[in-house]
Amino acid sequence: MHVAIAQGLREHADFEVGTATLDEPEHGLTDAVLASTDVLLWWGHMAHGEVRDEIVATVQARVLDGMGLIVLHSGHFSKIFKRLMGTSCNLKWREADDNERIWVVEPGHPIADGLGECIEIGPEEMYGERFDIPAPETLVFVSWFSGGEVFRSGCCYARGRGRVFYFGPGDQEYPVYHQAEIRRVIANAVRWACPREPVAAAPYPAERSDAGWFEGGARLA
Amino acid sequence: MHVAIAQGLREHADFEVGTATLDEPEHGLTDAVLASTDVLLWWGHMAHGEVRDEIVATVQARVLDGMGLIVLHSGHFSKIFKRLMGTSCNLKWREADDNERIWVVEPGHPIADGLGECIEIGPEEMYGERFDIPAPETLVFVSWFSGGEVFRSGCCYARGRGRVFYFGPGDQEYPVYHQAEIRRVIANAVRWACPREPVAAAPYPAERSDAGWFEGGARLA
Amino acid sequence: MHVAIAQGLREHADFEVGTATLDEPEHGLTDAVLASTDVLLWWGHMAHGEVRDEIVATVQARVLDGMGLIVLHSGHFSKIFKRLMGTSCNLKWREADDNERIWVVEPGHPIADGLGECIEIGPEEMYGERFDIPAPETLVFVSWFSGGEVFRSGCCYARGRGRVFYFGPGDQEYPVYHQAEIRRVIANAVRWACPREPVAAAPYPAERSDAGWFEGGARLA
Amino acid sequence: MHVAIAQGLREHADFEVGTATLDEPEHGLTDAVLASTDVLLWWGHMAHGEVRDEIVATVQARVLDGMGLIVLHSGHFSKIFKRLMGTSCNLKWREADDNERIWVVEPGHPIADGLGECIEIGPEEMYGERFDIPAPETLVFVSWFSGGEVFRSGCCYARGRGRVFYFGPGDQEYPVYHQAEIRRVIANAVRWACPREPVAAAPYPAERSDAGWFEGGARLA
Repeated sequence: MHVAIAQGLREHADFEVGTATLDEPEHGLTDAVLASTDVLLWWGHMAHGEVRDEIVATVQARVLDGMGLIVLHSGHFSKIFKRLMGTSCNLKWREADDNERIWVVEPGHPIADGLGECIEIGPEEMYGERFDIPAPETLVFVSWFSGGEVFRSGCCYARGRGRVFYFGPGDQEYPVYHQAEIRRVIANAVRWACPREPVAAAPYPAERSDAGWFEGGARLA
Repeated sequence: MHVAIAQGLREHADFEVGTATLDEPEHGLTDAVLASTDVLLWWGHMAHGEVRDEIVATVQARVLDGMGLIVLHSGHFSKIFKRLMGTSCNLKWREADDNERIWVVEPGHPIADGLGECIEIGPEEMYGERFDIPAPETLVFVSWFSGGEVFRSGCCYARGRGRVFYFGPGDQEYPVYHQAEIRRVIANAVRWACPREPVAAAPYPAERSDAGWFEGGARLA
Repeated sequence: MHVAIAQGLREHADFEVGTATLDEPEHGLTDAVLASTDVLLWWGHMAHGEVRDEIVATVQARVLDGMGLIVLHSGHFSKIFKRLMGTSCNLKWREADDNERIWVVEPGHPIADGLGECIEIGPEEMYGERFDIPAPETLVFVSWFSGGEVFRSGCCYARGRGRVFYFGPGDQEYPVYHQAEIRRVIANAVRWACPREPVAAAPYPAERSDAGWFEGGARLA
Repeated sequence: MHVAIAQGLREHADFEVGTATLDEPEHGLTDAVLASTDVLLWWGHMAHGEVRDEIVATVQARVLDGMGLIVLHSGHFSKIFKRLMGTSCNLKWREADDNERIWVVEPGHPIADGLGECIEIGPEEMYGERFDIPAPETLVFVSWFSGGEVFRSGCCYARGRGRVFYFGPGDQEYPVYHQAEIRRVIANAVRWACPREPVAAAPYPAERSDAGWFEGGARLA
């Protein structure tokens, strides 16, 4: 999957794209890699439990410091997404070649730039409500499935200084990441989530010297 | 329509239910009627333009002072709803016996009390996205239509001290207001929107005497 | 502290109030206790790290199933609040007898029932922005401190089927939980967060038999 | 005022800046001017009632079609802001040289780019809660005033395809629009509110030919 996703992003000359996989040391997410990453895309399936907790904690800290995070499809069940949401992130699903159509409900949002009123996906794994997430701060897309379900498939959040976008489509059995509009959405989301200033080493300094500030070690659960 | 809606509400012993129609003097919404109303339900179709602007202004002022407002189906195009939203409130529609299924996306919300995971409506007029409203403060329901559309069909707002709920189902050609779950939703919404204290005569008094407060005459556009 | 808080709640005849402390077995939060609890209030200070992770996981699961949670003052740094928020929950603080005034910014919200436009606290520990939380779904109160800070001191969230309210005042050095308006807010919050239906044993069953649903074991991180 | 505001914007080479005043024909807001405007800034005081309703309706339609709108200080009582909000937009005020400090509560938001944790304004007219607006979709700034008040002074909204930002500071008696950080905020807001695609002539076409769409004439109240 990571090849198809990266290929889409490499169409944009202003993006530098790297990949990391579970079986690399530290899953490829070393401090050096994270320190040079503006936006991290996360796709995962089945093996969420194998992701090490201390790597998850490091990624969470980077998001709070300003790194963008795009979570794709079955990444809804990743440790990092559940940690940032605080909920189970459970949902309904069915592999039965349902047709999916993604409706744009916030056409003025940067992540919807260049799209028409909906995106026709064709056959895709069904993901449906109730999706156990906090209400999105901005709900950009709602998906329709031919089998009778709906799904909040484009969800924006702020966490700390970082921005998080969940995007529903993308089962490994379907060629969805090769579709131009899906690539457009992912590129839009990368731009939206990208920090405009460097990710902070210490994001909330106690500038006013008479007030206390709990130090970084207390930050993560 | 008002008979079917009122009939459902009269099943609840703690509700006192009255009705008002366009052809009554002041559309039945005299100051005396509004002064004794906790929650107003609004259903309209085609004749929105005949509702007098000064009555709309009075209703808006009562909402800001704390009266609840439930807007049903084609009431999305009423003057009062457009005034409270600030947008066109336009939407897609089709009369073609689409099947509608209403999904609960906030199962812990009071308006969803006593419901299962979805409500099967059967044939109904289709209302679809993009629905030009401000993003709901709480989105309780999302509808699925067999023809391929989705719709944010249960939308909560606060305006001043008042609470506003838009609920999608209810075309005059279909018996939807006789369905038990729909009656349950409307009754839940009435309880949710009902002010717990009397609707204020002067809701935002300048209690702190050294600060100014623009007086009520300036309130409405 | 728990005595003062419980005393305030016992003024309401329809509340049954129990208490639990860190040094009890399972911190007093056994399965039996949680199973009979509609709303849990959480106050803590300094000893957050001693709360056992498995108890936190159980409490989180109960909230997602519908139990209300009220987090008070220094409870902002409790494991349970950080888990439900997904952020560091860090804030500014100063113990210098700042005067606090709590402004009501959503006067129509149930948690503000019976209040005037603000609550005068008098001397209190300062808690100030930036408070590293997700944007509240409803922001009910904003506090002013004489030393120059502001604080989002009344914050509502939905998590799963449960409702969560964070309330800022309440340092152990000050008599704030004896103040009538503060007791009123806490009682209002308990009513707002209370599930109207029993807390679900299995909150999101896959009623539609052709769709899958990830089982409960996967719920918690 | 318009000179000071325009002067700040002209520091940015990529902005083309024009001005319009009440006493020009159509208040300077002709169709041709609006058609070439990406973002409109609105400052007004006392003379709100003299702005013609049909110009307000035209500006509202342009916002819904995608034009950005920045409303400054006493513009909270302009017809255009009240129409887009649906509420009275009333607030507390006092001219008594209160000191104002603006706290950043969403440091990752584009409008807060380049700011520290707060902006010190010094003496300024006090604007305080309760500010009768719909809850901002994103609350970026909260102001502290030395006299004891707080104010939601940086408020983001989406209306139709357009984005709206209200910014509190800016009384005509004070030099606030000459302050570098205030100019930074306004420039940030212009970039945030600027449509990335041309403002739509017909923003929500019924692309799916089997579904109806209410035509533009019905758009405005």
